[in-house]
Amino acid sequence: MKCVKCGQKAAINMRHHKLALCKDHFLEWIPAQTQRFIEKYRMFSLQDKVLVAVSGGKDSLSLWDILQRLGYQADGLYIGLGIDGGIGYSNESQRLCEEFAKSHGLRLRVVSVGAEFGETIPELSLRTIRGKEKPCAVCGLTKRHIMNRAARDGGYDVLATGHNLDDETATLLGNTLNWIPGYLVRQGPVLEADKPGLVRKVKPLCRIYERDMAAYAILRGIEYIYEECPHAVGSNSIFYKELLNNLEAERPGAKINFYVAFLQAKENGLFAAQADPDLDKLHACPSCGQPTSAPGMCAFCRMTAKA
Amino acid sequence: MKCVKCGQKAAINMRHHKLALCKDHFLEWIPAQTQRFIEKYRMFSLQDKVLVAVSGGKDSLSLWDILQRLGYQADGLYIGLGIDGGIGYSNESQRLCEEFAKSHGLRLRVVSVGAEFGETIPELSLRTIRGKEKPCAVCGLTKRHIMNRAARDGGYDVLATGHNLDDETATLLGNTLNWIPGYLVRQGPVLEADKPGLVRKVKPLCRIYERDMAAYAILRGIEYIYEECPHAVGSNSIFYKELLNNLEAERPGAKINFYVAFLQAKENGLFAAQADPDLDKLHACPSCGQPTSAPGMCAFCRMTAKA
Repeated sequence: MKCVKCGQKAAINMRHHKLALCKDHFLEWIPAQTQRFIEKYRMFSLQDKVLVAVSGGKDSLSLWDILQRLGYQADGLYIGLGIDGGIGYSNESQRLCEEFAKSHGLRLRVVSVGAEFGETIPELSLRTIRGKEKPCAVCGLTKRHIMNRAARDGGYDVLATGHNLDDETATLLGNTLNWIPGYLVRQGPVLEADKPGLVRKVKPLCRIYERDMAAYAILRGIEYIYEECPHAVGSNSIFYKELLNNLEAERPGAKINFYVAFLQAKENGLFAAQADPDLDKLHACPSCGQPTSAPGMCAFCRMTAKA
Repeated sequence: MKCVKCGQKAAINMRHHKLALCKDHFLEWIPAQTQRFIEKYRMFSLQDKVLVAVSGGKDSLSLWDILQRLGYQADGLYIGLGIDGGIGYSNESQRLCEEFAKSHGLRLRVVSVGAEFGETIPELSLRTIRGKEKPCAVCGLTKRHIMNRAARDGGYDVLATGHNLDDETATLLGNTLNWIPGYLVRQGPVLEADKPGLVRKVKPLCRIYERDMAAYAILRGIEYIYEECPHAVGSNSIFYKELLNNLEAERPGAKINFYVAFLQAKENGLFAAQADPDLDKLHACPSCGQPTSAPGMCAFCRMTAKA
């Protein structure tokens, strides 16, 4: 297999794109694709201050790397969740984020859940109904809260996350199998900051396959944490990813088609304007000032307010 | 495992419904469920004349059996497609439909595609672009045309087909993976006859698992054709069914949840009214008088009009 651009030996063959590339051309192609989607979905410009949520994984560190290469002003945000899981998960991922920032001359902001709220994610989960079965719901809520607050208080124009195509299609499949109107209507490359206090959220890697992001991180020599979060075992998202991987294996391109056709149908007006039940329900949480659709305090402040 | 109704040995355990039943109670339960959905989706009443499209397979013959047991006036329609496939597929399925009708004292109407249009489905497929890869598109178009015409000309109030939950969810998954607005918006247990010349179409088995329909046919002693149509090998619908079977194996009830949540979301106004691009485009075909969205003659008349 040869690189279609230079005829050298290909380092990667992307069947879903019918495209084989050598290492150098692949490492150029991924940022060019990212730039294309940043523009296509009007995510941000070179003038904007971007905050990248980094977890220490391949996607978010690669995104930070790509944004720097493309000339964007992007700081990092690491949220210390206090997850050990027998492998020192949070410690190791924080170390990798800090090393990446240092070696690239980038600024990393760190928020420790344990230091700030007195309890780590596993501790919060043990105490709350939301975390009863798995800490993932507590973790998601906490991360969304902290990401929005850090971006707002730090004066950033936009918060970028490393969600790749596999993440997005797994979410889309889950939202579709359960037909959750609010989630379906809102899912997309950009979540607009349509209420005061909300920061714009964007996913520049939303159209790039997970496998290609892993190849990018490896070929760029980015040191990242290989392990999934120990709590992710048996999660819905991993289950849906496997299902979509089976589909993709039979029909290369099925994932990107699923996602792009969804965006296209949405843009063409498939969904009714009033289909989002949470629309217009947001108000400021009296405790933290962040927007919430819950009556009274937001779900995060209720969770962290000790009994 | 015991029958939840009488404590006798269960003949079937339906994990998706958390319900185990003995033979007798299962053979009562399936018609009761069917009756429930006929009422819920307002399909037809005891006064209506129903035409059941029968293929000789387990679903359509069982549906005919169930409708007779429930006291409905239901004639059968068999469409002779002229498919042999080395197993005498059409001959055998016609024989089974005729025997079922005779033994149950029911009226069967037979339309032979070959006798009526001079060419069987395999012959039509060889000659047309639509049938180039597989005859399935030609077959689907032909069946839809003949079913509607036979129901309209025979003075029936409604046409019933044997589509089961697995058929419906496979179609829904295909429509979802490709986000085809018109198909998504129109899919449901009832297709209204909202244009002159169109006959109302209903699917009384749409919420019953394929596996349960097979059990019903076997336990009722209905003789049906076990073979799939020889042209169905490698079809999208079979591929999607396998994918959903994998999902169902991990999460019993996933199929029924997928379908019912879809219907609920649709009823709650998820889709925009204008999302169906073919809405209001139908007019009468100048050749056969049946409604069509194509300009001029309908796709069927164009296909069967010899060059």
